[in-house]
Amino acid sequence: MADQKKLVEEITSMREDFAQWYTDVVKKAELVEYTSVKGCMVIRPYGYAIWEHMQRILDGMFKATGHENVCMPLFIPESLLQKEKDHVKGFAPEVAWVTHGGSEELEERLCVRPTSETLFCEHYAHIIQSHRDLPKLYNQWVNIVRWEKTTRPFLRSREFLWQEGHTIHATATEAIEETERMLDVYARFCEEALAIPVIKGKKTESDKFAGAEATYAIEALMHDGKALQAGTSHYFGDGFARAFDIQYTSRENKLEYPHQTSWGVTTRLIGAVIMTHGDDNGLVLPPAVAPVQVAVVPIASHKPGVLEAARALTERLNGFCRAKMDDSDNSPGWKFAQYEMKGVPLRLELGPKDIEQNQCVLVRRDTREKLFVPLDQLEETIPAQLKALHDGLFQRALDNRGRHTYRCASIGEIKRAREEKGDGFVYAMWCGEEACEDSVKEATGVGSRCMPFDQEKTSDVCVCCGKPAEHMVCWAVAY
Amino acid sequence: MADQKKLVEEITSMREDFAQWYTDVVKKAELVEYTSVKGCMVIRPYGYAIWEHMQRILDGMFKATGHENVCMPLFIPESLLQKEKDHVKGFAPEVAWVTHGGSEELEERLCVRPTSETLFCEHYAHIIQSHRDLPKLYNQWVNIVRWEKTTRPFLRSREFLWQEGHTIHATATEAIEETERMLDVYARFCEEALAIPVIKGKKTESDKFAGAEATYAIEALMHDGKALQAGTSHYFGDGFARAFDIQYTSRENKLEYPHQTSWGVTTRLIGAVIMTHGDDNGLVLPPAVAPVQVAVVPIASHKPGVLEAARALTERLNGFCRAKMDDSDNSPGWKFAQYEMKGVPLRLELGPKDIEQNQCVLVRRDTREKLFVPLDQLEETIPAQLKALHDGLFQRALDNRGRHTYRCASIGEIKRAREEKGDGFVYAMWCGEEACEDSVKEATGVGSRCMPFDQEKTSDVCVCCGKPAEHMVCWAVAY
Repeated sequence: MADQKKLVEEITSMREDFAQWYTDVVKKAELVEYTSVKGCMVIRPYGYAIWEHMQRILDGMFKATGHENVCMPLFIPESLLQKEKDHVKGFAPEVAWVTHGGSEELEERLCVRPTSETLFCEHYAHIIQSHRDLPKLYNQWVNIVRWEKTTRPFLRSREFLWQEGHTIHATATEAIEETERMLDVYARFCEEALAIPVIKGKKTESDKFAGAEATYAIEALMHDGKALQAGTSHYFGDGFARAFDIQYTSRENKLEYPHQTSWGVTTRLIGAVIMTHGDDNGLVLPPAVAPVQVAVVPIASHKPGVLEAARALTERLNGFCRAKMDDSDNSPGWKFAQYEMKGVPLRLELGPKDIEQNQCVLVRRDTREKLFVPLDQLEETIPAQLKALHDGLFQRALDNRGRHTYRCASIGEIKRAREEKGDGFVYAMWCGEEACEDSVKEATGVGSRCMPFDQEKTSDVCVCCGKPAEHMVCWAVAY
Repeated sequence: MADQKKLVEEITSMREDFAQWYTDVVKKAELVEYTSVKGCMVIRPYGYAIWEHMQRILDGMFKATGHENVCMPLFIPESLLQKEKDHVKGFAPEVAWVTHGGSEELEERLCVRPTSETLFCEHYAHIIQSHRDLPKLYNQWVNIVRWEKTTRPFLRSREFLWQEGHTIHATATEAIEETERMLDVYARFCEEALAIPVIKGKKTESDKFAGAEATYAIEALMHDGKALQAGTSHYFGDGFARAFDIQYTSRENKLEYPHQTSWGVTTRLIGAVIMTHGDDNGLVLPPAVAPVQVAVVPIASHKPGVLEAARALTERLNGFCRAKMDDSDNSPGWKFAQYEMKGVPLRLELGPKDIEQNQCVLVRRDTREKLFVPLDQLEETIPAQLKALHDGLFQRALDNRGRHTYRCASIGEIKRAREEKGDGFVYAMWCGEEACEDSVKEATGVGSRCMPFDQEKTSDVCVCCGKPAEHMVCWAVAY
């Protein structure tokens, strides 16, 4: 019984300590476990199953847009990493170095990939000669290492899982279109699979990916009012091609440099799901990525026929959703708490009386709404309830973002908004100068997240220097 | 045109130089490309797609037998690797060591996982307290690094992809059953998905996995008569549990050590497919893992209606198999050679006359048999032909193994068999002494591969020392 009690222990309330709430949830919902290597985690079956659903859906979207999966090596020789100057400057300080193989010291150090642009470029140089070899639309699902100082499960870890798309095109136009297309794919995935509304925008110069001409991002607002960068898409121009000497013969028989992109999302998205939808009872999972969509709990399961009926029902449900029966000898109350904590979208209760009346009880995780449903209507009711739950989560997140988006015309207004209403997205104008960007951050605490594609004119002048404004920036405190 | 010619260049004949034939095939069928890190390869889209199909099928088999996927860290602290003495002795000489994170030297070196027993053990020690926590049936799909001296794509590389199953059980009986169950899963997968017949057996003491009580393996015979270990399954007893202090409270409220297993297959299986089924025209892929099962080649595609008909047909085929149309402006002859090299199981030709007669031409990759098939019968004919091809590949491999299995009663007979008939499986009796095992290898060149579960009594005495024999061993030269 000692084992069981631990599982229903209260988790810290969000309001009391959001960071502790997050840690409690990832541990108690059995998503991750710590290891003896700082910043490296075990992703446990329940956490990994969420990632598998994310992978499956995204991979389908990538393939539908013409991409092929490949696998590049884990190691990058130091000299290869150094070929593109901005790139190495951005990544060298945070890579892990392999110096020995067995008992022998290596002639050249190898870094564990922090991202794979350099490896793709080396490969492109081997395989691309003619315009007929273009475009190459590649993706890989791999692990990545960045030697971060401060780490948190899913949000910032030294090793993480991601996908990195890498494409190479004959023209700049095609490459820019690709960058935008994949940002759209990410935004659609976040909204349609994860029920997370996102803002699409372009990063400022100071916040670009190392080596990129332009970086685009989707930004989401977490429940505590902080921003989370949920995905990025980079346009490289021909900078990498020039550094790695990748050239192709055009239709006109001229040697040209091709144009490249890369784009990625990571296991961080699991953190985004937790902090967007979770509540004081634990996780709340959007149905598309929930490992279990319906938890079937037999009531008074010692009574004759109950377990058999619940088992048969679960098998039937598995024809159209992901259902799992819990026939353990834990009490129904313990099970209810357990599946609430694990964020299972729907709970289905089935007891002797229900069976008699040919019905069951459905309980929604988000609203706790209770429905009595005739057993022969489950094929319609469950998909409808899952959709309603998804829509409800999305709307709630959108409302939360609305309540925490502040349009400000001066640094004073930004400060006041944050003091009065707490963290959130601040929409404010900017002249385009890095000095002003830095000053806003210093004075108010919020940094530039992106310049949203949907620009509003919240005033005419830069919120900092008062000169004519070029862009509306979305500012926030970020994860 | 220069680009195109390269692709139809002859590959080295198998008989002339099998190793060069292999290298030609992996390169020209675009499975891999070399990189500047020795022993680390790029797996290109066509090679990776084969691996994706293998993963999908195996993952389904693992889940159907109750296993869950997890993800352990990439790094193992040196002190953790050292906890189980035999294990560290086996692996320490061939691991890659990370010594620096960014510009700082680490306090303790980390090795890049060569296998993850130690990480799973550390995790089990955290999460297992009671008999109710057992069994745990885990698997992970990850990359692995072993600092090999001699490397070959897929067969032996410094980094490779694999899955590693790790399970932990209350009793030895359960763990041993698991070890055997997963060896069976591997054997079924090889035979039913890859059309590769395998021999199931137990490794001798000298050939066990580092730290295991018993190692089981499946062994396949390649076209050149060499053996390839296609998968292994290990029973650990409670050795790791004792070394890592993993204990559970039994039903009788006593502290007990649990029993463990691990089992794995790797991208090496792609090498096995190449060397079992390939021929002098290139790859021959078993349909279950072929990225493209039917290559649709329009003939005289400039004639009106041909391309449209081929396109519509391809779409229809994709309802029940993996079909791809090649509408490039390469000649049909070039395309035929290309899809032969890539091992596509069936080629479908469709020209103006075929359309007139409402038929098409189907050509099998293995036999080159040509069939004229009415278009409205493709739903039956294509699956039947794919199955016939699979069965044909399996039978051919089985026949080849039969022709190259030699039952020998003395060292002299082994030598003679190898001289007269070439490499193959040698079935010969063994007393159980390591000294005799070594002597056989020294005298004849063949090493012990396994003691097959299906034992035959090829004689009464050890082929080496003449003492009473305990086991029939399958000996061979191995990859």
